[in-house]
Order: sequence, then structure tokens, then C-alpha cells
Amino acid sequence: MKHFLPLDDLVAALEKLPGIGKRSAERMALALVQNRDGLARRLAEALLAADEQVGTCSTCGSITVTKEDPCALCTDGRRATGLLCVVESPGDIMKIENSHSFQGRYHVLGGHLSPALGKGVADLRVNELLSRIQPEEIQEVILALGTDVESEATASYVAEVLNSRGVAVSRLAFGIPSGSAIEYADATTLQRAIEGRQKI
Amino acid sequence: MKHFLPLDDLVAALEKLPGIGKRSAERMALALVQNRDGLARRLAEALLAADEQVGTCSTCGSITVTKEDPCALCTDGRRATGLLCVVESPGDIMKIENSHSFQGRYHVLGGHLSPALGKGVADLRVNELLSRIQPEEIQEVILALGTDVESEATASYVAEVLNSRGVAVSRLAFGIPSGSAIEYADATTLQRAIEGRQKI
Repeated sequence: MKHFLPLDDLVAALEKLPGIGKRSAERMALALVQNRDGLARRLAEALLAADEQVGTCSTCGSITVTKEDPCALCTDGRRATGLLCVVESPGDIMKIENSHSFQGRYHVLGGHLSPALGKGVADLRVNELLSRIQPEEIQEVILALGTDVESEATASYVAEVLNSRGVAVSRLAFGIPSGSAIEYADATTLQRAIEGRQKI
Repeated sequence: MKHFLPLDDLVAALEKLPGIGKRSAERMALALVQNRDGLARRLAEALLAADEQVGTCSTCGSITVTKEDPCALCTDGRRATGLLCVVESPGDIMKIENSHSFQGRYHVLGGHLSPALGKGVADLRVNELLSRIQPEEIQEVILALGTDVESEATASYVAEVLNSRGVAVSRLAFGIPSGSAIEYADATTLQRAIEGRQKI
């Protein structure tokens, strides 16, 4: 591939993106340099702008992309106060915001407990969460964590700590995903959907 | 998504890449701004460098990424002269180069005949191909075009023109892909593999 050397840098960088292998990266690199609408330049500029402006919100721990701290979500007066949604990563906030189903504020834990990876309580932003309870008069915390064993353990731990401080804790419902058929649900999902059945 | 506005530009640009939908683009954008190794900046620089240096080789019609014209492949003295491989697009050259199976030079047609899209003979780089025969003393041309109807028609046309000028024309073999089982081959592939059977 020596004749495509300057593209090799581009392919190598694209390959680092999540879900992108060598073939996709090569296809993208070629599409980028052959694009006549200045896509390469536009993407480069968007990357530099995002890279320039990205930071971490000291309140919720999410990424902030306008150099504001606290971030726009934490200072948005139209959002309910007293209600926090705890997530593992900033990407989860993006998902929940896209669903337009939550109007409170967020708190990013920064992962979940993982003994195998040596990730303990001190590595999560739990103290930052506790320090928000009083000033923000938090009444309820919704845990929007994953459903694997480690995330469940994390949820139990966070719930215990919050309950001991008199904060109501809830978690997302488990069940059959919307639009999915029963036959595609695995046994654990079905078990939880039956446990969590609701009167109609 | 108003709170992720500066990321929206990035997501929009990433979405234009081949094979990338909105979800993948969001995942990539988040990974890029959260990456601690300067991936966003590295990718931006690779994009700008490639965009800056990209051009078209006036000989073979491929992209050249070092502002050289003719490109490095066309001027590489270690490559066989007199033997040309005709492809539809520069990406095909990348594939063939990766296979280390061809040591001659290339010629990019720039697509195939497509009456539906109004793409005729004049839109392909056939005259450029013919004008290389004499100065480069081309003895043989290998057609490495696709196997759909339009590419086949293109191959027939190019072969006819070249044959009438006394140039030997061959095409890539059809058959079962390497590493694949008979049961996965479609009927046309099998038919062609049987027609092209070789003595062992």
C-alpha cells in the first residue's frame, strides 16, 4: 500500500473509531478524498471544533461541548430540579435525551463497579452525586444503569447509599423491548417482564 | 439534542460516510470527543492532509495523494510495463494492491456503462486508455471489472476496441471465492465455476 501512504494515516485514524475495521476504514478514506462537496474538510473542521470545545461538566460529569461549566443541561432552568437520572456514561444521556422522556437533570457515574478491572467505589462519581443532594434538594434519583451483573451491583450500592440519606430511588423498568415479539425475548428478559407485569 | 449542538455538526459529517447511519455516527462522535489520545485531532489532521494533497493522475486516472502527476504507481520503474489492469474506480486498485497479485500498471475507467444513469462511452476514460497503447507499448490488458450486467457490457465494449487495435485482452477468472463452501455459492457463480473448470 506504499502508493497510498498519505491515505494510510487517514485509514489508521478511522480504524480507531468504534465498530470500524480496516475494510470500512479504507472505504471511508476513499469516499472522503473522492467527495467533491468538501466532506473531508467539513469533517475535519467539525472534529477540531468539537475537540477545541469539549470539556467535562464539574456538576454532572457529562461532556460539555461549549466550554461551559456547569453544562447547558445542568443550568437549563426549564428542566425539573430535585430529580436526577444517574447514568454510566455521557452517551447514555444522549440516548435518553433523544427519547424525550426525561425532563430532570443527569449525573454520570463514569462506569460501573468492576472487580475484574479493579474499578471500585472510589472510581465512580458517587461522592459527587451525594454532594448534590442537599444544594439541589434532590427528592428522587432514577438509576438508568445496565442490566448486566456488574451494573446491577452498582445500582444496588448506589441505591443503598441514597436510601440511607432519605432519597427515593427508582430504576428503569425491565421488560420486552418496544416493537419486539415475545419469541425474540431471551429467558431472563421474559422472567423480568413477567415479574414486572402491570395491571391493565 | 440541543445540548449537544457542536456535536451535531460532527454527527452530520460522520453520517455522510459510506455505511454509517445516525446511531453509528453518534457513537463515533462521542468516542472521538471522549478519546484521551488526541484521536479527534489526529483524524482531523489526516483529513486535511489528504484533502490538501489529493488529486487525479492524468495518466491512469486514479487518485494521487502526493500531488505527483503522473502518480507514484505510474512512474514506479519496478513495475512491469506493457501490461495494464483496467478497473472501474481507484478503490479497486487499493484492493488489488492489497492482494500483491499484480505487478503491472493500472487504468481507471471511472465507472461502467449505464444507460439508466445516462453514462455512455464518452463518460469513461476509454480514449485515455487507447492513447496509452502506443507510447507504453501495451501488449496485454487485464479487465478487472464487476460481474453485473452493466460491467459485463463495459468489458465487452472495451475488449472489442482493444482487440481491434491488436492488444491481447483477458479478464479475471470467475469462480467460487477462496475459503467459501460450495453450499454458499449462488447458481450463477456455480455455473461460471463449472464453465471455467481447470485440469488438475
